[in-house]
Amino acid sequence: MKFLLFTFVGVVHLLSTNSGKAIYRNGISQKTFQEIKEEIACYGDVAKAIINLAVYGKAQNRSYERLALLVDTVGPRLSGSKSLEKAIQIMYQNLQEDGLENVHLEPVKIPHWERGEESAVMLEPRNHKMAILGLGSSIGTPPEGITAEVLVVTSFDELQRRAPEARGKIVVYNQPYTNYSSTVQYRVQGAVEAAKVGALASLIRSVASFSIYSPHTGVQEYQDGVPKIPTACITVEDAEMMSRMVSRGNRIVIQLKMGARSYPDADSFNTVAEITGSKYPEQVVLVSGHLDSWDVGQGAMDDGGGAFISWEALSLIKDLGLRPKRTLRLVLWTAEEQGGIGAFQYYQLHKANSSNYSLVMESDSGTFLPSGLQFTGSDKARAIMEEVMSLLKPINITQVFRAGEGTDINFWIQAGVPGASLLDDLHKYFSFHHSHGDTMTVMDPKQMNIAAALWAVVSYVVADMEEMLPRS
Amino acid sequence: MKFLLFTFVGVVHLLSTNSGKAIYRNGISQKTFQEIKEEIACYGDVAKAIINLAVYGKAQNRSYERLALLVDTVGPRLSGSKSLEKAIQIMYQNLQEDGLENVHLEPVKIPHWERGEESAVMLEPRNHKMAILGLGSSIGTPPEGITAEVLVVTSFDELQRRAPEARGKIVVYNQPYTNYSSTVQYRVQGAVEAAKVGALASLIRSVASFSIYSPHTGVQEYQDGVPKIPTACITVEDAEMMSRMVSRGNRIVIQLKMGARSYPDADSFNTVAEITGSKYPEQVVLVSGHLDSWDVGQGAMDDGGGAFISWEALSLIKDLGLRPKRTLRLVLWTAEEQGGIGAFQYYQLHKANSSNYSLVMESDSGTFLPSGLQFTGSDKARAIMEEVMSLLKPINITQVFRAGEGTDINFWIQAGVPGASLLDDLHKYFSFHHSHGDTMTVMDPKQMNIAAALWAVVSYVVADMEEMLPRS
Repeated sequence: MKFLLFTFVGVVHLLSTNSGKAIYRNGISQKTFQEIKEEIACYGDVAKAIINLAVYGKAQNRSYERLALLVDTVGPRLSGSKSLEKAIQIMYQNLQEDGLENVHLEPVKIPHWERGEESAVMLEPRNHKMAILGLGSSIGTPPEGITAEVLVVTSFDELQRRAPEARGKIVVYNQPYTNYSSTVQYRVQGAVEAAKVGALASLIRSVASFSIYSPHTGVQEYQDGVPKIPTACITVEDAEMMSRMVSRGNRIVIQLKMGARSYPDADSFNTVAEITGSKYPEQVVLVSGHLDSWDVGQGAMDDGGGAFISWEALSLIKDLGLRPKRTLRLVLWTAEEQGGIGAFQYYQLHKANSSNYSLVMESDSGTFLPSGLQFTGSDKARAIMEEVMSLLKPINITQVFRAGEGTDINFWIQAGVPGASLLDDLHKYFSFHHSHGDTMTVMDPKQMNIAAALWAVVSYVVADMEEMLPRS
Repeated sequence: MKFLLFTFVGVVHLLSTNSGKAIYRNGISQKTFQEIKEEIACYGDVAKAIINLAVYGKAQNRSYERLALLVDTVGPRLSGSKSLEKAIQIMYQNLQEDGLENVHLEPVKIPHWERGEESAVMLEPRNHKMAILGLGSSIGTPPEGITAEVLVVTSFDELQRRAPEARGKIVVYNQPYTNYSSTVQYRVQGAVEAAKVGALASLIRSVASFSIYSPHTGVQEYQDGVPKIPTACITVEDAEMMSRMVSRGNRIVIQLKMGARSYPDADSFNTVAEITGSKYPEQVVLVSGHLDSWDVGQGAMDDGGGAFISWEALSLIKDLGLRPKRTLRLVLWTAEEQGGIGAFQYYQLHKANSSNYSLVMESDSGTFLPSGLQFTGSDKARAIMEEVMSLLKPINITQVFRAGEGTDINFWIQAGVPGASLLDDLHKYFSFHHSHGDTMTVMDPKQMNIAAALWAVVSYVVADMEEMLPRS
């Protein structure tokens, strides 16, 4: 099979020389939508076979059991840690033993930060040992810690208004939780904004929808030209208590000690495995999740589940003896939590081939009961995805939502490649996210079965259809 | 006013010599039920006034604010701790400043146990620092800790079957959570049962309906003739993980260090305040909650809420210028968590007067949205309580359930005194119970307002009715 690639008025054209159907001209399919609809409808039996195997058959609970074995064995998998590299080596072996093809590791240099010993003790108005988790990339304190009075604010606006009060203090953010993407700005930017007004450190109310005195970590970002100050998250409970205390006129003094330190970048890998395409092996449908996690809990939910339903998708397809026309590629990203480091490296390495990527998929928001698929792409592609999702009628999860996304696939989506992500029941997600509570206890094998079935049907059918998904 | 007490065929008779109505003969009222019903109906306006003041008026959120101030100021209040005694002194002052009568402290000797430093580290199959909380009254380990292999069981039955395997090991209980009263047996008896079969220590899965890697402490009981071994609770997550590990054939080794120690009994007090009865001051309606807590979190839910709606009941009645015929007595118990030590002492001191107790009330299962009142007493008394609860129609909480109870009032209930407890929405209760998560964040001021209104209406009306509640 040969492909002739050329560009014309900025549009990539793919001309398959040995197929009457898979010809694109100016991004427009040679097939009518009715023909595509009929083509997809033919996958009804395959979809049922996948669902039966994943949800009711021999493969049920497999992704859960595999995940439990890995995360019980290695624990959490922070970027730069030995346990992440151990997990990658185990996965490399697992994927080979599973009979997948082209199993290989793609080298990536990733950040290596360690929290070390850390503590925060309220000294005034009363002695109270606080639960904290230093934020990724934070510097540490001097060994004797930073002991300072606290300024509590509930927003960046309040910090600006009270800027003169912040100098020499520890800024505590008690921002309310509205939604993740808004509220997380306090975790990411809190230290920089506090440093700009002369604070010595910042403590951020954990970005969590529900708490049992649980600190939730995550990345934070320093800014060139702004002094680096130590920063950690505290519990919702302590943030609220400190707000109450200052509202009563109490002076709060905290001693913060953090042994956090960054080390030279570490060697790591994206882990790749494939079912090579039978007809268009150069063309790719990518399914993925990330293997790294924070250094607390087990990284079972974020993103063990996403990584393992992605592996499961290939396992299910292989078990059924299926081989799609284009290559189905599994990528287990490294260092997603540090800002999609592995995914960026992968994109740099493979972007020249982006015109051959029909669909990039990532599951990184839990594998609870799926609501459907989030999709970003052209209207034509969306209409096709709706047909594909209708194959999941046997498990009654057929909806296609807007805004397919994921830290690790956004590079591709921004380059115009259609992208899809799993949308699931998120009501508990931010109770556990980046906390000690992200463990196998959170995971539900039956929900993972269903998520895996959806993931396998979508990736297989898109990989096997005669034509790639049309772009804008 | 004089009372003549005598017994006749084992039944207590109360003969009021100066009232045409409050005469009991063989426990049977001189009033017909219809008359009592009419009497209670006359309290409709008073009930509305209490509800308006508590829920919509000037007193709204007062019990929440008062509680927040106390628990933010002193933190948790373990039996034997300085913070409990500080809380008692603050409450003594608070109740006096509130204008309540006969404010006094009744001395009690209470247990003094401290957990000290404690840790549990899994050494095999992988290094994992576990969250634990030593259980109340547990002994400590030697300073070097106890390092031993683990035997995981899911029930006492399994422990019995596998008794020969337990010798020299740390027994881990991974009992499923069914309901509190059943499951808590593992916390209370786990160490004794493990010691009987030669275990060196026991770790008990926290008795919790939901977990974010949260250990939940509580009492445990040693038994004469059985060696005392150290015992702590672990998280649901770690208990489940260890079960999975052993099911795969892993050998688990844990190093447990506990600095727990018991000290000589400490001086403490039940805190008492009253609105003295206008007509039958010797007769009592008792409202109560306990002031002590475990040594984690803030003891806001267990039982700050119960203690403070009980205080609030008296405050509301006083604010409205009401004075019931019999004495309304507030008792804030000490050392409930150690087995109702303060309450037992109170009962010993006052039981000779038990015939003068019309009703004993305790709120010790949260002050979330009330469902109604739990009541233990004669059918006649229950019928009266149903009429009283009908006065709460304006807030639509009128149900009377079975099984009024509470560690601190059960002594009285067993002696035949009618008893009532608050039944509320318990769905989150055991997520926070005895954990670091029992803080003001859990509490809802509006729900406390409603609970306080209910508590005040019931206690006032029962204290003010012409006759005491009839007994069996």
